Amino acid sequence: MFYHKKELQFEAKPEKPNPLIAKYLQELIGGQYGEMSVAMQYLFQGWSCRGEEKYKDMLMDVATEEIGHVEMLATMVARLLDDAPVEDQEAAMAKDPTIAAVIAGMNPQQAIVAGLGPRPADSMGNPWSGGYIVASGNLLADFRANLNAESQGRLQVARIYEMIDDRGVKDLLSVLLARDSYHQNLWACAVKELEEAEGSILVPSTFPRDKEKLDIAYDFYNLSEGEDSKEGSWAKGKALDGEGEYNYVSKPEPEAEAPKLKPAPQAMHGTPPMK
Amino acid sequence: MFYHKKELQFEAKPEKPNPLIAKYLQELIGGQYGEMSVAMQYLFQGWSCRGEEKYKDMLMDVATEEIGHVEMLATMVARLLDDAPVEDQEAAMAKDPTIAAVIAGMNPQQAIVAGLGPRPADSMGNPWSGGYIVASGNLLADFRANLNAESQGRLQVARIYEMIDDRGVKDLLSVLLARDSYHQNLWACAVKELEEAEGSILVPSTFPRDKEKLDIAYDFYNLSEGEDSKEGSWAKGKALDGEGEYNYVSKPEPEAEAPKLKPAPQAMHGTPPMK
Amino acid sequence: MFYHKKELQFEAKPEKPNPLIAKYLQELIGGQYGEMSVAMQYLFQGWSCRGEEKYKDMLMDVATEEIGHVEMLATMVARLLDDAPVEDQEAAMAKDPTIAAVIAGMNPQQAIVAGLGPRPADSMGNPWSGGYIVASGNLLADFRANLNAESQGRLQVARIYEMIDDRGVKDLLSVLLARDSYHQNLWACAVKELEEAEGSILVPSTFPRDKEKLDIAYDFYNLSEGEDSKEGSWAKGKALDGEGEYNYVSKPEPEAEAPKLKPAPQAMHGTPPMK
Amino acid sequence: MFYHKKELQFEAKPEKPNPLIAKYLQELIGGQYGEMSVAMQYLFQGWSCRGEEKYKDMLMDVATEEIGHVEMLATMVARLLDDAPVEDQEAAMAKDPTIAAVIAGMNPQQAIVAGLGPRPADSMGNPWSGGYIVASGNLLADFRANLNAESQGRLQVARIYEMIDDRGVKDLLSVLLARDSYHQNLWACAVKELEEAEGSILVPSTFPRDKEKLDIAYDFYNLSEGEDSKEGSWAKGKALDGEGEYNYVSKPEPEAEAPKLKPAPQAMHGTPPMK
Amino acid sequence: MFYHKKELQFEAKPEKPNPLIAKYLQELIGGQYGEMSVAMQYLFQGWSCRGEEKYKDMLMDVATEEIGHVEMLATMVARLLDDAPVEDQEAAMAKDPTIAAVIAGMNPQQAIVAGLGPRPADSMGNPWSGGYIVASGNLLADFRANLNAESQGRLQVARIYEMIDDRGVKDLLSVLLARDSYHQNLWACAVKELEEAEGSILVPSTFPRDKEKLDIAYDFYNLSEGEDSKEGSWAKGKALDGEGEYNYVSKPEPEAEAPKLKPAPQAMHGTPPMK
Amino acid sequence: MFYHKKELQFEAKPEKPNPLIAKYLQELIGGQYGEMSVAMQYLFQGWSCRGEEKYKDMLMDVATEEIGHVEMLATMVARLLDDAPVEDQEAAMAKDPTIAAVIAGMNPQQAIVAGLGPRPADSMGNPWSGGYIVASGNLLADFRANLNAESQGRLQVARIYEMIDDRGVKDLLSVLLARDSYHQNLWACAVKELEEAEGSILVPSTFPRDKEKLDIAYDFYNLSEGEDSKEGSWAKGKALDGEGEYNYVSKPEPEAEAPKLKPAPQAMHGTPPMK
Repeated sequence: MFYHKKELQFEAKPEKPNPLIAKYLQELIGGQYGEMSVAMQYLFQGWSCRGEEKYKDMLMDVATEEIGHVEMLATMVARLLDDAPVEDQEAAMAKDPTIAAVIAGMNPQQAIVAGLGPRPADSMGNPWSGGYIVASGNLLADFRANLNAESQGRLQVARIYEMIDDRGVKDLLSVLLARDSYHQNLWACAVKELEEAEGSILVPSTFPRDKEKLDIAYDFYNLSEGEDSKEGSWAKGKALDGEGEYNYVSKPEPEAEAPKLKPAPQAMHGTPPMK
Repeated sequence: MFYHKKELQFEAKPEKPNPLIAKYLQELIGGQYGEMSVAMQYLFQGWSCRGEEKYKDMLMDVATEEIGHVEMLATMVARLLDDAPVEDQEAAMAKDPTIAAVIAGMNPQQAIVAGLGPRPADSMGNPWSGGYIVASGNLLADFRANLNAESQGRLQVARIYEMIDDRGVKDLLSVLLARDSYHQNLWACAVKELEEAEGSILVPSTFPRDKEKLDIAYDFYNLSEGEDSKEGSWAKGKALDGEGEYNYVSKPEPEAEAPKLKPAPQAMHGTPPMK
Repeated sequence: MFYHKKELQFEAKPEKPNPLIAKYLQELIGGQYGEMSVAMQYLFQGWSCRGEEKYKDMLMDVATEEIGHVEMLATMVARLLDDAPVEDQEAAMAKDPTIAAVIAGMNPQQAIVAGLGPRPADSMGNPWSGGYIVASGNLLADFRANLNAESQGRLQVARIYEMIDDRGVKDLLSVLLARDSYHQNLWACAVKELEEAEGSILVPSTFPRDKEKLDIAYDFYNLSEGEDSKEGSWAKGKALDGEGEYNYVSKPEPEAEAPKLKPAPQAMHGTPPMK
Repeated sequence: MFYHKKELQFEAKPEKPNPLIAKYLQELIGGQYGEMSVAMQYLFQGWSCRGEEKYKDMLMDVATEEIGHVEMLATMVARLLDDAPVEDQEAAMAKDPTIAAVIAGMNPQQAIVAGLGPRPADSMGNPWSGGYIVASGNLLADFRANLNAESQGRLQVARIYEMIDDRGVKDLLSVLLARDSYHQNLWACAVKELEEAEGSILVPSTFPRDKEKLDIAYDFYNLSEGEDSKEGSWAKGKALDGEGEYNYVSKPEPEAEAPKLKPAPQAMHGTPPMK
Repeated sequence: MFYHKKELQFEAKPEKPNPLIAKYLQELIGGQYGEMSVAMQYLFQGWSCRGEEKYKDMLMDVATEEIGHVEMLATMVARLLDDAPVEDQEAAMAKDPTIAAVIAGMNPQQAIVAGLGPRPADSMGNPWSGGYIVASGNLLADFRANLNAESQGRLQVARIYEMIDDRGVKDLLSVLLARDSYHQNLWACAVKELEEAEGSILVPSTFPRDKEKLDIAYDFYNLSEGEDSKEGSWAKGKALDGEGEYNYVSKPEPEAEAPKLKPAPQAMHGTPPMK
Repeated sequence: MFYHKKELQFEAKPEKPNPLIAKYLQELIGGQYGEMSVAMQYLFQGWSCRGEEKYKDMLMDVATEEIGHVEMLATMVARLLDDAPVEDQEAAMAKDPTIAAVIAGMNPQQAIVAGLGPRPADSMGNPWSGGYIVASGNLLADFRANLNAESQGRLQVARIYEMIDDRGVKDLLSVLLARDSYHQNLWACAVKELEEAEGSILVPSTFPRDKEKLDIAYDFYNLSEGEDSKEGSWAKGKALDGEGEYNYVSKPEPEAEAPKLKPAPQAMHGTPPMK
């Protein structure tokens, strides 16, 4: 069950309105690695958590924080859209080339559809999709997804930070950068804990390894001409899982015949047999 | 530039046809973490690789392998659909309840649209989406995405392995399990290499930390009542990034005021001011 | 800023597991009018609310409740999937035709992707989309959207209630039915309040009516042969907006010429002019 | 069965070409509440209409009108794209900053994909989706959806009207504004008729109310700190449905325990139990 | 401008209800090559037609017919869903294994969302998408798209015809098969007409051929080991465009160097240069 | 099984960076008819090919070439984004109106998400979708799809060629134009071969024609007022399939009654019967 306070956890006020930044911030709201994604991802992971109270509690703590992040960004976008040039645009464009560029570059849906507000979509206008999130019921798998999500997320925040000049927006991005740092620290810790507890770096750790084709489980296949890839730590020596030995296969060859499929039955009206 | 050999790298023949398994394998072809996803993800990462030949070569090696995985699964699906019950179904259903269930459970598009072939879609029929993949231009971020992708992928293969009885399909899944094991070993190694080379576990490592709000960069916010989350390695002691000290905040409070937005301009026809 | 309590607002326990019901409930979680939709819709409406504290507070109250609804349904789905037939399915199907049907009818992603958990998707597996929600910055418009959402939502809950036998699930649906009743009462009230305050039933009420083509603003065009539509309250008498008089146009005719478009410029390589 | 006349119902000619307006009008063609949506929504409602000839006839009348609206907008977009700057753009941009802005702001698919024509997509390029429409088989529910659609639609038309200067486009928007006014009048009337005929404002009116959890069917839960929401007409007095009494719950508390899920079966390879 | 008659062009009545066929027919309503696709495709092609009245008139004739096809299929689906097993399903499943299979196989959204009606979606539930259609402004290109659409469409109808037993549904499919035959005849004719009028089989015929790299414009690259492809009419002799000579390249080699990308600027925080 | 060489088949270097062209080229990478589409389309057609080695080999040859086309375009996009204006944009915009326009027009995801790299998406940012491709198991149907794809593709390349000034990009487009010319020649040849081999222009050729409603299989229905369509080669004389005679129906009338649907069962809670 959830509760809400009207106050924002951190301030979300731009120095001045700027519709282009409002367009960029959509990536952090409704992009593949935006705050809607991490909020929903952690919520579903928490709600699906079978056993392990410590992890479930932690997931719900962080998920709840992330809903608040969407809130701060949504508020910031609305404020960046104050005084946007939404009237008699042709005249405005003729008068001032910088305003012309702003009108050309604005996200038209923030005006037409949302009345100068945020959208549940990314910076190119793609609506947020449930297809972005991960909640597999295996915490080690999912915490790796979370570590990735916070890495991509912080990277995007850092890029927007460099692209803009507004001090107020930068202050909010500083908050997000710090929280994404912490969350990278968090998920990396939790991954380490679980790898140690499960005694394996492989997900899932519980699947009996003799059911995989073990003789190819440490091979690197050199399928792109050139052998620079031989220099990596993945190509020689003891494998990171502590079990096998890496093996670089310079010239990988097929082990099976070329497949021939049976003709389709008449009822499927495939290509008829040629004479 | 790419080349193709007709032979499959490994065999892809079921013991006998089975349309339900053909439906499940779609998840491994066109699902969020199916082989189309990893193939495209590694290709785009390779093509966007700025500098660092060793990693680019490695990405192209593995990407090229993954296209071959799609090929094996596509072939397997076509064979699992041989002799599917696609004629006069009502009569067939009345005669045999197991066939009735198979007809009911079949993916109708594998018959109607593909003529008993695979689809670029997942097990619920959602078409594969470019929105699934990650290629950020930052290899540490992306290798974490790859480690996650191979973890989710191997988990899904393991689950299907348990759900089915067919020895031929299980043999192909054994291959995929082994390769996903190796690829987890690979990306975990490559992540470690890069974290050491960059001297930081934080992505991006190049963003100046004094531009984040450092005083909150090690806080855990207890936002879900109950303090089980305090027991994690993320809640006390030296942070994994080697710089800060974790800090558990039991009762997080807002630091900013409740936001009041300005009214929208007349031209946006928002709610008019109430008396 | 948000807070969470582990307890559910209402109980979410089925009498016994049932994967088909778990598939149906996805519609209420991630469907067009599921709880993710209303939660997100009310959150974005609240965050975009410019002025009018009373409405903003109310929106945030209801939005926060809806996140808790997703939570109850997600929990219910996970429990309905306990003991689902996910092992050696071919053997299981041969043994028992009812189990065969359950296996055939199950949502495979709830097993393969989520490990017996809920998905952010509808009952046919379409991922939830930001394209479902409405937050226009005009509260009268949006409260009508909300009234519709709660109407469609309650209708779907009522249908699932009739389709199933499980007492525990029905108890949760009783809760949702009651809350959807209340929310219909709520939005209908709020719509009435705003229509009275704005002095018009037309959205937006602030657009000057003399800028519309008023001479056609009360016409009903009979474009489908047959005049049953003449019998409606929309076809004669004083219009509901209190301004015009309805007018039934039996034989509507075009007022403009057939359009002829200019040829495309050479650079667009459209169809070349025919001789 | 449908018939077509080449003439447009109303004129669709801009004063002069303008690619930015052509981009905006896409929202009215293929947006969530564009004319494709209402056309398809009313068609499917009409085709699914079980009984009630008067409503079916009316739905088919209005649906048929809406296809003609798509036609007028599509024609207008094609004309707005005449003479668009689609040749040697770099040179053109260097010469004139307003043209530079127009090139930057144009929808590239209207040129590259459609050869200066309209697209079945919204102003950010998202293709129109069947996921937008509503046809539930319950007319009261659906007429509320229609009232909402015409409200959002008219709001968007009004906004674009304010944003632009072109008299010809404004004339077409005046037509759409008038028709959207009428359609709001129409659906509001039809809703009223049905509420009176069914004797209830609740959808569905036919579901026995004693099967909902009636003791919570009139409660407002104050879940966002602050009690402004207490002032609404939804918070006290007789409910609009004429049956209950509104009740403001200042401090809502959970009624159920925190859920504990059973561990997943071994075959699902969830997180293994920790020691 | 459009008009509607209530009568169907052809009859659409099943012998008896059958929810599985109702699921299949969705492919013909809202699939990639269903009737919504051809209706919308021909409408947009007609509305974008610049010049050439004969083709525009023809496009509008056929488009208008296709809206009527959606109507017949929608009506058929509604009738196939009469008496569907939507009550107390668990009990019903236990009693009769064929009913159990039908319940398991039914499209749940046709009941829960549409109240036993058709959906604007395909047989796997994917909503129809504007991304399916083609209207390029070049009629030769588009008529090829139309020929393809009618070919895929008729193929799918033929497959469903074979899969089912119901005489009434088969009668409607006979109508669709005949119309798809005619439309293949139509588009093939129109393609031939335009190829002759434009004097080229290449789209676009108006682009100066000396601006392509003509020395590779007749090469077949043998990039999949094995030379069966050499036997095709595309591999030797005069090219179909009447200009070049086909040339089979047995061992294609790269003509350009391996690309090295410049490092990203600091502001993008790509992978930092390694030592 | 696939192999890769680092070299590009043809050069992919722009004269100078240009973010607007980088945005346009996305259409050729991830658009409906971009290179990802043809690569995936031919791969799935090849993998599903049941019998007919010559065609399968040819499909795999061309599919493999197309993956290389994606590679060249991806590389070109990365280079076009070198030196893009991604720092302190507000200052940069104020200084130079052409740079202002470029910033406004840039695809923000190429910077924020991809770090100045290509995206698996089109020029409006829609992610590539498996819903674009066709692989029906009937080669004649599919080769028509391929002929359409190469026609739309070459048309789009030609348009971008006209829109830009950069010699390096134009050189790559010249390669694509030539290959699309060849591929149109190829698919047109292959279509002709199959039509002759199958002895019919109708897809599928194997469906018995007496099962279609043959009396309407050569009718043109004049459903859009005006008879320009009568002038086409589709309206009179021997049909192209060599079997029937075209027949122009000037005034098509319905052959079936207006449908009346049965009321929905109580459990579906449709509109209750009116008095």
